Amino acid sequence: MSLTYATPLEAATAAKTASHVLAALPAAARDDALTAVHDALAAARADILAANAADLELARAAAADGHLAAPLVARLDLGRPGKWDEMLRGVLDVRALPDPVGRASLRTRLDDGLVLERVACPIGVLLVIFEARPEVVANIASLAVKSGNAVLLKGGRESAQSFAAISRAIATGLEASKVPPAAVQLVATRDVVPQLLALDAHLDLVIPRGSNELVRYVKDNTKIPVLGHADGLCAVYLAGDADLAMAAAVVVDAKTAYPAACNSAETLLVDEAALAGAFPAVAAALLERGVTLRCDAASRAALAAAGVAESDLVRDAEDADFDTEFLSLDLAVKVVPSLAAAVAHINAHGSHHTDAIVTASAEAAERFMAAVDSAGVYWNASTRMADGMRYGFGTEVGISTNKIHARGPVGLEGLMIYKYKIRGGGHISTAYGEGEGKKRFKHEPLPL
Amino acid sequence: MSLTYATPLEAATAAKTASHVLAALPAAARDDALTAVHDALAAARADILAANAADLELARAAAADGHLAAPLVARLDLGRPGKWDEMLRGVLDVRALPDPVGRASLRTRLDDGLVLERVACPIGVLLVIFEARPEVVANIASLAVKSGNAVLLKGGRESAQSFAAISRAIATGLEASKVPPAAVQLVATRDVVPQLLALDAHLDLVIPRGSNELVRYVKDNTKIPVLGHADGLCAVYLAGDADLAMAAAVVVDAKTAYPAACNSAETLLVDEAALAGAFPAVAAALLERGVTLRCDAASRAALAAAGVAESDLVRDAEDADFDTEFLSLDLAVKVVPSLAAAVAHINAHGSHHTDAIVTASAEAAERFMAAVDSAGVYWNASTRMADGMRYGFGTEVGISTNKIHARGPVGLEGLMIYKYKIRGGGHISTAYGEGEGKKRFKHEPLPL
Repeated sequence: MSLTYATPLEAATAAKTASHVLAALPAAARDDALTAVHDALAAARADILAANAADLELARAAAADGHLAAPLVARLDLGRPGKWDEMLRGVLDVRALPDPVGRASLRTRLDDGLVLERVACPIGVLLVIFEARPEVVANIASLAVKSGNAVLLKGGRESAQSFAAISRAIATGLEASKVPPAAVQLVATRDVVPQLLALDAHLDLVIPRGSNELVRYVKDNTKIPVLGHADGLCAVYLAGDADLAMAAAVVVDAKTAYPAACNSAETLLVDEAALAGAFPAVAAALLERGVTLRCDAASRAALAAAGVAESDLVRDAEDADFDTEFLSLDLAVKVVPSLAAAVAHINAHGSHHTDAIVTASAEAAERFMAAVDSAGVYWNASTRMADGMRYGFGTEVGISTNKIHARGPVGLEGLMIYKYKIRGGGHISTAYGEGEGKKRFKHEPLPL
Repeated sequence: MSLTYATPLEAATAAKTASHVLAALPAAARDDALTAVHDALAAARADILAANAADLELARAAAADGHLAAPLVARLDLGRPGKWDEMLRGVLDVRALPDPVGRASLRTRLDDGLVLERVACPIGVLLVIFEARPEVVANIASLAVKSGNAVLLKGGRESAQSFAAISRAIATGLEASKVPPAAVQLVATRDVVPQLLALDAHLDLVIPRGSNELVRYVKDNTKIPVLGHADGLCAVYLAGDADLAMAAAVVVDAKTAYPAACNSAETLLVDEAALAGAFPAVAAALLERGVTLRCDAASRAALAAAGVAESDLVRDAEDADFDTEFLSLDLAVKVVPSLAAAVAHINAHGSHHTDAIVTASAEAAERFMAAVDSAGVYWNASTRMADGMRYGFGTEVGISTNKIHARGPVGLEGLMIYKYKIRGGGHISTAYGEGEGKKRFKHEPLPL
């Protein structure tokens, strides 16, 4: 199992106990622990880079044999220029974030001497499952300590030795702090994910970071709440009055800036009224960038009518294209008769991630943003804006398409819940009510 | 299936479509719909009371045959004095609550002309499963419409005819409004719960209201998020410095005011230092109320030493008593050596619902409230305060012991999530970054 515990259950139980200690620590103790983690990582530089070099050697051999994609190898390398410093600075960046613990979001005088307060507190024990980038261990450990949550970390096997070396350094740092080392545990045993996912009595939230397949597997195999998104099937809708240049810029960015990202556009919905307007300009700009347009009949006819050059990149769409996250330079194009039809298409075929309208009409934009059932709804902006750094959250745990708890890019706030505190003077329930001699609650809002 | 749809899937699909219309309606349209529902219920009074009388007749026969608990029969009766008016007033009370939709909780200027806003929006489609009280249909329908959520309602069969009559009136009211009638659907077919719980792609939240068994069954049989609590195993901890009279009042209220409620105390933890102090007075007060004390050896010895009268009500505790929700006039009593031990016991054996400390020390109370991992943590107040009405939420969807989304008594807020809106002017992601000619985000907080 982990570096210390024999079974997933023992590890989770120890994490739960540690979470109760961690949750009650003041901000200064959590911040001091992050300083200690930072310093321990810095002190262990040689060990960690040696472990990373060993991982890299195996990965290069695997890539040479065709067992590993070559681009993945580069992502494992902590020795790349700037990478090491970035990992260490990340710990201090998280330390510098505002303390999310203890913030009051409601305060009510229930009666004289009886005050109700709702304060933010950590969720408990997180299970974070991720793939191969070694620095993720340091990032997630920092977020957990800052937010007062214990965490079990399960990473991909390509970085096993790097993970172990980084985790040893983190443990060394925590030993010099008030945070119990069991609050941050690397799960080093292989194939233990199904056992971890069964521990719904001990683990409070799972965050899978990685492929759609990983997220879907996790969602389908646990009763623990899952924070994340399996799909990112985002759409841009061109209204009839969309500005040509703006529409082209937004759609080109949404499709081509990083086609493999979850916030990239996969579907272009063209209002009938835009067929002779913005659409040909948008299509020409996309074709110039090498985008394959999978067009329905109406959009294909419109391109021909507008004289957009015939090209191998213009193809007939199949029905399945409108339910596909391409993650490539492919875009499904469909003509819709109205804003309402665009909204209905997005709500039925999208993944509730991020969808945009390009229009000159504020009224149409507001209708679109109210009716589209997605975490992000944008007017005249690229879907690529859906990102914790761009939103100003400082760091990002993931992007959620859940309908409860946290939606969209999730920062530290998504790792928090609240508890209700009541401070009284012996107040009891039977003193209150409607009858003779009974008191009434005052329910007086107090400043936060 | 429901009154209109042939299968659970058709009903859920129609509810989802209706939810998108409902979510985009302004507050006035939702409030007008509640007025129409109220008026339609008032107009259908004779029909509904006739249906209720038919249910009652069957229920009385079932009670006479021993197939139904007699106290349940009274709860089915809409003809009890004040009951009808209360149901109707409930609709208007919900209408009068502040609109929870559209409230902004974050507003940030990302860049000139590019504003990010986080606004509250409905979750989508709720499935509420409840037992026999007929007025629950009207309550839940009102909460759903007010919060902009569609809802499928599945009630116990004892009130089948009342549910149907009330639902017909609600549908009549909604037909005269902008809320699509498919937004509020009664599921009238029997034994359809397993099929509904399988519709995790269509239903966004399940709220089981009823027995622990019901809640546990729902939690164990669905991938849809569940809001609620299976257990209410609340504890009161008497510190050594607890005031005698206050301790007795709080513990008596917590145990005896309504023993079957989830917020009643099941465990009394007595600090060693309170054994000769508050404990004998508390025990005497409890025994006077007929409470059976299931004592560990140390607490039993202390009672004997303090000269509290020997009584059949004082028994030896078994280990299982400290993990049991008695829902009766039984209380498990255990001596603990310290506040830390009390906290550890509560976190290990409690149900994370509501736990209280009685102490004169603010410092001890704050430590207890920070470390106990429960939805409610109280200082010198009865656990019975854990209630949406007492908290001033106006209405209560349930009490949650979840660790995400909503915790403790849940009002309308618990039926909301948020979406991020961005209003831009053609802003694209590739314009921002670190390099030459790239812009930086401003991340300027704006007033809400």
